Amino acid sequence: MSSPKIPRSTDDYTREAAAARRAFVTEQTGATLEHTGSFSLDPAVLPGNVEHFTGVAQVPVGLAGPLLVDGEHAQGEFYVPLATTEGTLVASYNRGMKLVRLAGGVKTTVVKESMQRAPVFIFESAREARAFANWLVAHEDDARAAAETTTKTGKLIEVERYLAGRFCFTRFDYTTGDAAGQNMTGKATWAACEWIKANYPGEIDYALEANLATDKKHSHINNLHTRGRRVIAEITIPDQLLREVMNTSSQALYRRRQISGQVGAWLSGSANNGAHSANGITALFIATGQDVANVSESHAAHAYVELRENGDYYYSITIPSLICATYGGGTGLPSQRECLEMMGCYGAGNALKFAEIVAATVVAGELSLGSAIVADEWVSSHDEYGRNR
Amino acid sequence: MSSPKIPRSTDDYTREAAAARRAFVTEQTGATLEHTGSFSLDPAVLPGNVEHFTGVAQVPVGLAGPLLVDGEHAQGEFYVPLATTEGTLVASYNRGMKLVRLAGGVKTTVVKESMQRAPVFIFESAREARAFANWLVAHEDDARAAAETTTKTGKLIEVERYLAGRFCFTRFDYTTGDAAGQNMTGKATWAACEWIKANYPGEIDYALEANLATDKKHSHINNLHTRGRRVIAEITIPDQLLREVMNTSSQALYRRRQISGQVGAWLSGSANNGAHSANGITALFIATGQDVANVSESHAAHAYVELRENGDYYYSITIPSLICATYGGGTGLPSQRECLEMMGCYGAGNALKFAEIVAATVVAGELSLGSAIVADEWVSSHDEYGRNR
Amino acid sequence: MSSPKIPRSTDDYTREAAAARRAFVTEQTGATLEHTGSFSLDPAVLPGNVEHFTGVAQVPVGLAGPLLVDGEHAQGEFYVPLATTEGTLVASYNRGMKLVRLAGGVKTTVVKESMQRAPVFIFESAREARAFANWLVAHEDDARAAAETTTKTGKLIEVERYLAGRFCFTRFDYTTGDAAGQNMTGKATWAACEWIKANYPGEIDYALEANLATDKKHSHINNLHTRGRRVIAEITIPDQLLREVMNTSSQALYRRRQISGQVGAWLSGSANNGAHSANGITALFIATGQDVANVSESHAAHAYVELRENGDYYYSITIPSLICATYGGGTGLPSQRECLEMMGCYGAGNALKFAEIVAATVVAGELSLGSAIVADEWVSSHDEYGRNR
Amino acid sequence: MSSPKIPRSTDDYTREAAAARRAFVTEQTGATLEHTGSFSLDPAVLPGNVEHFTGVAQVPVGLAGPLLVDGEHAQGEFYVPLATTEGTLVASYNRGMKLVRLAGGVKTTVVKESMQRAPVFIFESAREARAFANWLVAHEDDARAAAETTTKTGKLIEVERYLAGRFCFTRFDYTTGDAAGQNMTGKATWAACEWIKANYPGEIDYALEANLATDKKHSHINNLHTRGRRVIAEITIPDQLLREVMNTSSQALYRRRQISGQVGAWLSGSANNGAHSANGITALFIATGQDVANVSESHAAHAYVELRENGDYYYSITIPSLICATYGGGTGLPSQRECLEMMGCYGAGNALKFAEIVAATVVAGELSLGSAIVADEWVSSHDEYGRNR
Repeated sequence: MSSPKIPRSTDDYTREAAAARRAFVTEQTGATLEHTGSFSLDPAVLPGNVEHFTGVAQVPVGLAGPLLVDGEHAQGEFYVPLATTEGTLVASYNRGMKLVRLAGGVKTTVVKESMQRAPVFIFESAREARAFANWLVAHEDDARAAAETTTKTGKLIEVERYLAGRFCFTRFDYTTGDAAGQNMTGKATWAACEWIKANYPGEIDYALEANLATDKKHSHINNLHTRGRRVIAEITIPDQLLREVMNTSSQALYRRRQISGQVGAWLSGSANNGAHSANGITALFIATGQDVANVSESHAAHAYVELRENGDYYYSITIPSLICATYGGGTGLPSQRECLEMMGCYGAGNALKFAEIVAATVVAGELSLGSAIVADEWVSSHDEYGRNR
Repeated sequence: MSSPKIPRSTDDYTREAAAARRAFVTEQTGATLEHTGSFSLDPAVLPGNVEHFTGVAQVPVGLAGPLLVDGEHAQGEFYVPLATTEGTLVASYNRGMKLVRLAGGVKTTVVKESMQRAPVFIFESAREARAFANWLVAHEDDARAAAETTTKTGKLIEVERYLAGRFCFTRFDYTTGDAAGQNMTGKATWAACEWIKANYPGEIDYALEANLATDKKHSHINNLHTRGRRVIAEITIPDQLLREVMNTSSQALYRRRQISGQVGAWLSGSANNGAHSANGITALFIATGQDVANVSESHAAHAYVELRENGDYYYSITIPSLICATYGGGTGLPSQRECLEMMGCYGAGNALKFAEIVAATVVAGELSLGSAIVADEWVSSHDEYGRNR
Repeated sequence: MSSPKIPRSTDDYTREAAAARRAFVTEQTGATLEHTGSFSLDPAVLPGNVEHFTGVAQVPVGLAGPLLVDGEHAQGEFYVPLATTEGTLVASYNRGMKLVRLAGGVKTTVVKESMQRAPVFIFESAREARAFANWLVAHEDDARAAAETTTKTGKLIEVERYLAGRFCFTRFDYTTGDAAGQNMTGKATWAACEWIKANYPGEIDYALEANLATDKKHSHINNLHTRGRRVIAEITIPDQLLREVMNTSSQALYRRRQISGQVGAWLSGSANNGAHSANGITALFIATGQDVANVSESHAAHAYVELRENGDYYYSITIPSLICATYGGGTGLPSQRECLEMMGCYGAGNALKFAEIVAATVVAGELSLGSAIVADEWVSSHDEYGRNR
Repeated sequence: MSSPKIPRSTDDYTREAAAARRAFVTEQTGATLEHTGSFSLDPAVLPGNVEHFTGVAQVPVGLAGPLLVDGEHAQGEFYVPLATTEGTLVASYNRGMKLVRLAGGVKTTVVKESMQRAPVFIFESAREARAFANWLVAHEDDARAAAETTTKTGKLIEVERYLAGRFCFTRFDYTTGDAAGQNMTGKATWAACEWIKANYPGEIDYALEANLATDKKHSHINNLHTRGRRVIAEITIPDQLLREVMNTSSQALYRRRQISGQVGAWLSGSANNGAHSANGITALFIATGQDVANVSESHAAHAYVELRENGDYYYSITIPSLICATYGGGTGLPSQRECLEMMGCYGAGNALKFAEIVAATVVAGELSLGSAIVADEWVSSHDEYGRNR
């Protein structure tokens, strides 16, 4: 069987190579790739971001804001770029941001940072696995030293250990500066494992991943132990404001939240008892060159709310695994960098600031959709902005 | 407090309005949006897709394939556009597609279609909720009729009912043709609820959503009952092929899969016991104008594998909630449509075909990454293609 | 290797056989079994309940009540036998029952009955599995007829179908009268499967269980779809009563419940967001001859509470998989039957009544422990009644 | 409303008081409690075990064994007392023990011990909660000292911390010697919390439990972090033995295990991917005076199996939260103590030995039921031993 092969090597990053690939597609499939071929970026910037570069997806960016953030890293008002093709999304987040601003902003707190690679060590029986786990405790400093030879930025915080069957599962947890850190932690952990292999007084068989880090996958272990940044966002909104801006009330919002956030989320076994944080996160991730597949982990969240005695509505959301970067990956590509820059978030030193803006954006979206459901405006707003048919 | 307001109304879809918004961003933040402002699409096509249109994210598209699919709707070889900024991704999927082709292709089967909106009905006590649930069974045909007045395409398959506390949670399950269907089912279910409200012999208080559909959220209920399409992809690969192409063996691959897919996934409580299906799904979703936030649901999967007596490696993956469309949403935007067209998937009649291609792409990626981990080539390949630092 | 064999055949149900086994134990291990050998039951009643009968465990029974139940089957006051060795348990449930009585009783509602056996059908590929699932829909009446030939009591309600990999998993759901029904449904489903095997136009390979019924195991599918009885219990308690009887207030109780029932239960991934329903259920199960291992399923619960505007505390708990019987199994054994009789629950026609009493007991225990934690009396009460050391 | 009150105070532990309560029951309900009133234990031993003592449940005990255990604490053959009313159970476990013995016994390993109480600390906002979490790290030794003033046996191993919303959830993890330790850890943790309250430079509001220990409840956090003892049991069985003793083969057993243990357990979201470990655990718990409600936690398990190249069947099961004691609670009651003594497990120094016997018993039962399902002998064996009707 001989099939037509995509032209040019994967690492030929020129406009000509991209054009050749588009021409090949047209020849093979009849499809023209005119718009896919319309881009302003210079392919020479793409090594490390894509292979077999052929063109771009033009994803529309809508602007929302100002978003008022009362963070430790993000302070003040921000305009937020949301890349999406879903009607109503930008309008809805924008509406939430208006409420947020009138209520004094979203208070954001990054409470933990932890990115991991999670090797499993394989033994003859549970006893050998247990012996290894104990040895590893005693040699954690050596493993750390080995890991940190590979990176200037990454710091190994701890090594979690879990015994099951004849295996010792581990999680090597790092802080990774302003990069998301999946590759950094992979390389560092591999170095640590090789050190372990060379120094453990016994045979070592290991695999660098075994579903304990759950990269690109939601998991309960990450709800507990964090992957990326654990961010908590809080806001307190006067009842009067909800009535004026959202056509609802704190009590109505609170009651419905109890039903969906408690009972509904229990029945469904949902990764998120809130409304739709994936919408805002995804749109921000696409706009700013994040690894969008990490929406899988980042969309997990737990909303906890209170109806205060004075009628105020206290809303909080815990995002246990927000994975984002302001350096490395796709953050430096042309349009992506611009979108980070408009929030003052491009480059080193800005990851926590960006994480706070993402979390505050999520809050705006949760309040907006939650209110629309309670006020029975959800379908009508989609009729106005979306493509109901 | 008076903050600068984003210029032009949300529904001003012109190049001028977009330019005005970019100028505003520059004025407010100092950031230039040159590349964000470089696009070939005509803003006039954007109503229903975005508000406050400002420009585009240029997401690089890499080309992978040919991917050999033995589906019921997708038959033959396809070239697959992957929009990503993550180095190694396209190369890795492309490597998997090579293996897939040599093994005779991926067999894909859509076993269920179900998109839902999930209202909760609120009563004084459990007994009233139970009475309503029984009434609803008896009036399901009427509710269906009411729902289907709002849509030509959507068909109400069934109404699931779950009783908890003083609530009757429901799921209105539809087939939605070639659209993803979230808006369609929202509008139809709202119509059904209004009919119920008018006709139920008692007070009806309801909310149109209460976390039982878990739109934009992974959930166990969708693992069981499907959201979007439930697709199963299977392949059988000779041991020899794994040795030649992937530098591993069926036995090695099988053993590691058991550890990570069974024990690791149990420990972590992962939404997916496989490797990284979110990577391929996200890249395809961005390229083709899907609602990318649905990666939250679509990334869930369960891999089940066998080591056959003759040494063959049987690999299957069940994707219970693959949400995709070939019509509506962002599928008709210029570059997105082109990317669908190159797979022969644009427009009505192609949703199942596209779902099959997505599932086959996932298989290619799972085999490639799984093999890399076993062959200990994972870190080195990222050193070659990615941005390890 | 030849080890001493337990004397007498498993089905020798006499005092002599039991004595011989005890003598054997003494000979082999040195342990005397004097109290284990002190029983009033006639071993002749034991066939079908135990093999190698050797004596009894004397489990202390404490009395709690009166428990005021406002059920559809249980009406009025009941005295509840709790078999336990855990100090404080009876006193705590008794305290809760006092509160319950003063508040007007617990309203109980059985909203669903469903006991199942869950065969898996195994095919070459997903397509064959899907074809079978469709065939099964068309032949459900025949399968039902085959199943019901084996039982006078059991009625097949429906057959749930779930496709994954190359398998069609099913759940055959029955009502089982006043028996718990695991054996009844096992036999009936086996008969249905044999009918299917004989009549399906294709090869059938199946296993009668494959972890979809999760007998003796908690599972999310049973939270959703019920195993045994789904019971909801509700009560509304005036604030003043909580202050007088429980040394707390509705507001204090409510606030703590939100924290533990929402946030805590989410973090831990608990099968039950309440306090300790397993305590009361287990004690009642042991006393009344239930299959105590079903505590695994029966302990799952979801508490949903409200703080009403007038200060009332509305408490509800949904027990999705309460498995109990008043007929068959151990319910007819001497002390067990007596304990059922003291609640008017022995024999046919009483299963729902008993289920309601169990649920009301759970409520009493939840309110009592919940209040003790809030009032900081938990440790001190264990110092008084328990064996703190 | 004045209802008849149970006679005698809760702490009147005499035969007369028990008789008075039985007479009261008879008077109120008409039920005679003759067998419930037949017991050989002296009520004077009951303080700390039950209140309102009224009589006993006579739970039949069947004998199984010899069970060959290759543990670190349990070595050799044991006869196992199983208190149950479920026909077939003893016979099935006994059959499994025969297989186990012929295969050389079950290798058991206790890999972790951890019993906890889990207070939540409540703050104004996430930032205060984070500050407290950091303070607690710095003062863990002081908290430990305070905790350990209350117990000679309990040792505080570590304090886990989880931040969500405006709360700092913790788990105070202890080793508890040969007691199960729930009360011990409650008292110790309360002392630690009071120390914290007195010494933290800020207001402290806390609750001693908030669903992070999940006492009497299954949870994912305990799967990961252990509650009680984490025990792993392993066995390797020749194919020939499975054919001779169980009427099946290693391959048949293996294949079915993959389907139910992987795919089935994933679909159902089961707390246990094995067959029915709750059966053996519950029967052993009742016989030996354990806190039977802890079956909720103890029934969780994960089976991992392999089909070895020589045809051997390697079976392992990880029980992450086995809660058991050989001292304290109900272990010293007359029949219960006898049942512990027959395994050489009564009193101090035996908890790990007992845990190993429980785990080995579980393995025997898993192999037996698993084989019966594969050999299609399950229903027929229940027809023989049980009460199929």
